[in-house]
Amino acid sequence: MSEDILQRFHGVIPAGGVGTRLWPLSRAAAPKFLHDLTGSGSTLIRATYDRLAPLTGDRIMVVTGQAHRTAVLAQLPELCDENLVLESEPKDSAAAIGLAAAILSQRNPDTIMGSFAADQVIGPVEVFQEAVREAVATAATGKIVTIGIRPTLPSTAFGYIRQSGRLDIDGAPSAMAVAEFVEKPGEDLARKYLASGDYLWNAGMFVAPVGLMLRHLAASEPELYVGLMEIAAAWDTPVRDEVMARIWPDLPKTAIDYAVAEPAAAAGDVAMIPGVFTWDDVGDFAAIGRLNPASESTNITVLGEGARVYADQASGVVVSDTKRVIALIGISDVVVVDTPDALLVTTKDHAQSVKKAVEHLKAAGDVDVL
Amino acid sequence: MSEDILQRFHGVIPAGGVGTRLWPLSRAAAPKFLHDLTGSGSTLIRATYDRLAPLTGDRIMVVTGQAHRTAVLAQLPELCDENLVLESEPKDSAAAIGLAAAILSQRNPDTIMGSFAADQVIGPVEVFQEAVREAVATAATGKIVTIGIRPTLPSTAFGYIRQSGRLDIDGAPSAMAVAEFVEKPGEDLARKYLASGDYLWNAGMFVAPVGLMLRHLAASEPELYVGLMEIAAAWDTPVRDEVMARIWPDLPKTAIDYAVAEPAAAAGDVAMIPGVFTWDDVGDFAAIGRLNPASESTNITVLGEGARVYADQASGVVVSDTKRVIALIGISDVVVVDTPDALLVTTKDHAQSVKKAVEHLKAAGDVDVL
Repeated sequence: MSEDILQRFHGVIPAGGVGTRLWPLSRAAAPKFLHDLTGSGSTLIRATYDRLAPLTGDRIMVVTGQAHRTAVLAQLPELCDENLVLESEPKDSAAAIGLAAAILSQRNPDTIMGSFAADQVIGPVEVFQEAVREAVATAATGKIVTIGIRPTLPSTAFGYIRQSGRLDIDGAPSAMAVAEFVEKPGEDLARKYLASGDYLWNAGMFVAPVGLMLRHLAASEPELYVGLMEIAAAWDTPVRDEVMARIWPDLPKTAIDYAVAEPAAAAGDVAMIPGVFTWDDVGDFAAIGRLNPASESTNITVLGEGARVYADQASGVVVSDTKRVIALIGISDVVVVDTPDALLVTTKDHAQSVKKAVEHLKAAGDVDVL
Repeated sequence: MSEDILQRFHGVIPAGGVGTRLWPLSRAAAPKFLHDLTGSGSTLIRATYDRLAPLTGDRIMVVTGQAHRTAVLAQLPELCDENLVLESEPKDSAAAIGLAAAILSQRNPDTIMGSFAADQVIGPVEVFQEAVREAVATAATGKIVTIGIRPTLPSTAFGYIRQSGRLDIDGAPSAMAVAEFVEKPGEDLARKYLASGDYLWNAGMFVAPVGLMLRHLAASEPELYVGLMEIAAAWDTPVRDEVMARIWPDLPKTAIDYAVAEPAAAAGDVAMIPGVFTWDDVGDFAAIGRLNPASESTNITVLGEGARVYADQASGVVVSDTKRVIALIGISDVVVVDTPDALLVTTKDHAQSVKKAVEHLKAAGDVDVL
């Protein structure tokens, strides 16, 4: 792939989701992407930025909520105003990624954008970057390119991508055609997907010419498309706020998978680079246990500076957001998340049920801790 | 029993133990007896005082640490200075109860004292009071009288009292002679004790003429006896503090059981009233579960005003000393004790292991939370 093509590449980081299954660590005011969940010293959004920067330089746009402006800039002080897109309210991924596409297209219609969620853990970075290079080379041939993740277990938590034949693209030796995106399967189906070898996890990574993204968006979500284009036309002008305030609140909420990826795949416009890096979306506290080694002396994975943990016949995960002493006695695979105003005690097996607790607290009016 | 004898009766409440197995709720600065562990609205020491007052009026002496003066007076505002005995440092039960005996004897050698720990839960109070009346009547015949607890299980956590023949004492129809006190048994022995019917739990309740208490103390612990008598002689004089400061720190530390109860039993001077009330020494957090009903909607026993507990597929005990939201998911018989600077997560089965955690924290230098 010529370096010319990489010059057209612009990263986009949608930083939206709260990460409800990581409550009470993640919450509306401190969503998942603002935490260091791997003990690396970097928050997830900082690590996402640092993974892309060697490919893009400072051409990385972040789309996030107005409320997170200060926190995001604290994490990414090099982010110039031009590359910070603030949503006045959340509108799901089609609007967020679509707005980035529209603004980038307005500025330079030759741009190839690459959208990568702010809250994933990936390594080694060099392997990821090589996959992105192949994706950019493939996108330059007029494809929407996703980077699929080789499944390691029959997960029912992810959507899948069905690959069809191998493509023959200069600079992208591993590029595959994509037959379809399929929704999160049940357990039996997930096992079949895993066994077939043709299904990869959909990690929501999309690399594509902005024009192609917008064309599919226009076809499947014309109302959203028209609104986003009007906002984008005003974006770099003095009337940005006024136009945004008028149009954004009424835009339809939908996912980029429905609005672009699935119809584009049906049209034969999608390709895939299989990612052979390790990948984790840190979906719950069990993931924290996977991603962080347990202390050999205590069998406990501890996250949090200054944590003071005593363990006796215990194992599991402690996330400490306080300076309190935490004593764990006689519980296996426990999950304890200790924050100043809320405490979670569960097990790794029940880590997915945290979402239900958050929904219950919301319904009960305990919104001060959400 | 004539009311004259009851006029000689003076309650004594040694309030010393921290209640290590109830850490982090109980701790040096807030020992067990200063907590309401039954949801009754009364702290254990207040309830102990209220159980005795119908028999003693205001003739109740509290022996506690200097550090607890303010907290004890807040609980027992009616306690006059004459009935508050403050230890400059803990010296175990023989010194605490012996000092009370010596002071009471100095004031009136005809006194019958009744010592009852500050941190036990007893009911119904009328049944307890009837046992104490019988104990006082028996003590008046020249006995050290203990109130034994009928064992309900082969506990290895308590010492036992072996009864021998029935006594025939006016006003004390259930009084029994005591053959011996025996130490905490192993499991096999505890089962034999339970089966025999002749062994009752030693709850550390002693009713006796002060002179008889002191006579046995003099015989078995002469150094302690001499020191206590010297302090008692100075107690109601201007040199109390000076004498206390000189003598108390060097007094031997030993338990009242070794210093008085066991030798007195060997001499045939001990009687017992079998207590038919319910009794719990609230020895650990499993006891909190026994003593407080679980919420029907959540299966969780919650102790603590303003506790905000969400439970899903969980059961157990939550003690909340904060205003934090506590979410419990998928753990049975869990024990969560939430305080501003320390958190305990364990199970009812491991409630006794809390002591080990406290010892570890002490050794590790984490004394700020003990």
